[in-house]
Amino acid sequence: MKAVNRQIRLAARPVGLPAPGDWEQVETVVPTPGEGEFLVEISYVSLDPAMRGWMNQARSYVPPVPLGEVMRAYAAGRVVASRHPGFAVGDHVTGPFGVQEYAVCDGRGVATVDTGRAPLPTYLGALGMPGLTAYFGLLDIGRPRPGDTVVVSAAAGAVGSVVGQIAKRLGCRVIGIAGGARKCGWLVDELGFDAAIDYKEQNVEDALHKHAPDGVDIYFDNVGGDILDGVLVHLALGARVVICGAISRYNATTQVSGPRNYWWLLIQRASMTGMLVSDYADRYPEATAELASWLADGSLRAREDVVTGGIGGFPEVLLLLFSGGNTGKLVLEIAGSARLGRDG
Amino acid sequence: MKAVNRQIRLAARPVGLPAPGDWEQVETVVPTPGEGEFLVEISYVSLDPAMRGWMNQARSYVPPVPLGEVMRAYAAGRVVASRHPGFAVGDHVTGPFGVQEYAVCDGRGVATVDTGRAPLPTYLGALGMPGLTAYFGLLDIGRPRPGDTVVVSAAAGAVGSVVGQIAKRLGCRVIGIAGGARKCGWLVDELGFDAAIDYKEQNVEDALHKHAPDGVDIYFDNVGGDILDGVLVHLALGARVVICGAISRYNATTQVSGPRNYWWLLIQRASMTGMLVSDYADRYPEATAELASWLADGSLRAREDVVTGGIGGFPEVLLLLFSGGNTGKLVLEIAGSARLGRDG
Repeated sequence: MKAVNRQIRLAARPVGLPAPGDWEQVETVVPTPGEGEFLVEISYVSLDPAMRGWMNQARSYVPPVPLGEVMRAYAAGRVVASRHPGFAVGDHVTGPFGVQEYAVCDGRGVATVDTGRAPLPTYLGALGMPGLTAYFGLLDIGRPRPGDTVVVSAAAGAVGSVVGQIAKRLGCRVIGIAGGARKCGWLVDELGFDAAIDYKEQNVEDALHKHAPDGVDIYFDNVGGDILDGVLVHLALGARVVICGAISRYNATTQVSGPRNYWWLLIQRASMTGMLVSDYADRYPEATAELASWLADGSLRAREDVVTGGIGGFPEVLLLLFSGGNTGKLVLEIAGSARLGRDG
Repeated sequence: MKAVNRQIRLAARPVGLPAPGDWEQVETVVPTPGEGEFLVEISYVSLDPAMRGWMNQARSYVPPVPLGEVMRAYAAGRVVASRHPGFAVGDHVTGPFGVQEYAVCDGRGVATVDTGRAPLPTYLGALGMPGLTAYFGLLDIGRPRPGDTVVVSAAAGAVGSVVGQIAKRLGCRVIGIAGGARKCGWLVDELGFDAAIDYKEQNVEDALHKHAPDGVDIYFDNVGGDILDGVLVHLALGARVVICGAISRYNATTQVSGPRNYWWLLIQRASMTGMLVSDYADRYPEATAELASWLADGSLRAREDVVTGGIGGFPEVLLLLFSGGNTGKLVLEIAGSARLGRDG
């Protein structure tokens, strides 16, 4: 076997939206696992808004991806060679494998998943980091109570769609904010949200006045910017704002302003708290099991937006996150097992 | 007795700093208490930054002071006539009596205070709303642990000076931010703060880098604006930001921007929480008793900046809060018992 491993490496720090020249596609030889390692053939690469932050040279919760390195990404695939006692050939796994066709790893951050329970891409969405982010952010930081009014932005995205569904399960009133009638219709008609606000067509403040007349108890924020400001003035007494993302800021080329309405935190004795899913790593198994049981009983619906195109499609597909082009979890499909045959 | 009651009423909604024309001084007859009421002769009026917000026509945590009404204020004085079973002539009291020389009231929000334990102005400062604000904001929202690094802004003010001293009692490292060498010297030399940053002379971010090399665990914010932004980038993991005030915004005439560095809440999984002392009313007695015991044992020092001038001085004295003119609790002294003799 002498297969090629195609990789997408970070070639330059983007200014604004990542441009084609910020990436470099490289062909290397598929690596051989050493003792205690295994080789994963990657089938699906996860595309996440947070990736944009990882590309910047700035202090953050993780170090920047170094220039010239394979782009950091969660991915899902199959073990095709192993010298690791915990992973066998044929196992399906997810982990931080990067934007490439093959990855050698030692098992850190890798989970074995059961494709009998859910298809592999779901383990990058509702049963992966996005689902876990929704789970811990809503339950631990938002602390929902039955009857609470919960607002979530980027509601048709991988995290937001799970946040809203969990909140519905708990007896909350759920309002999603999303861009476009199609996404809003999906939230209400398919996922059972109580209302959806199309921020491209509606004034968010006015719409919240209508849909959340008693105020917002929990705001799960994935976007920042004007939408965050619009929700702040509608907070209820003792509200909790979960800061999970700020996609409106990620591609800014000038200094972005902060939430000018943060003063409503005082007026309503509310809190705004940042969360990162990796803080909850020791609780992933219990949370994943619970999410899976909800998928099984139909109270949680997973949706992946799987785009084909292979590794080479990554630079373009990533941009869908910032143009609002995806509904549900955006995943890039890699050619998979066909490759070995093709190249071997 | 036919004494005159001088009052300061709100005549207009200020634009920017309150101007002389925003006030009207009125002389009325001292009112007579009805059944269940008592008459207070006011000795000291409290001046608080929050008053500026009460003058605006905007939705907030309390309704605006109506135009033409006596300006809302906490004050301290002596009961001079009573038809209320709970208050006797001669009792010293504090309460929301307004900016006037006499007030009739029914006892709501009024506390009887012991001038043998502390002088009357202290009951508007360390043993009054500012002290209670510091107490609950730091302990309940900040949740200090020994060894925490605590930063407080407007540190030489009525609230900030108490926050820092309580934090020191609890074994925290305390850094005050204040304007001018005199205030900073007082914080370190007299109150025992570990460091003070003169924001008028020093770059707050640089100074925090030096004084809080391991990050800020608690930031008690009284000012908002650039100082809040400067502290946010120095938050430690799991930090708590207490939003108590935003004096830098109160007189703004254009839309003020929000904390552009709020994203550090996510990077550091920190929280920002608004607090209002009135939420803790049922715990005022225990807190006041504890603060008084700390005053008695010398571990808490109270300082009032008592300005004479009577009711007529109010419009000008209020501005000291916004020019940084006071150190400690700013209080306006009213002529007190001399008045009845003068007018009777």
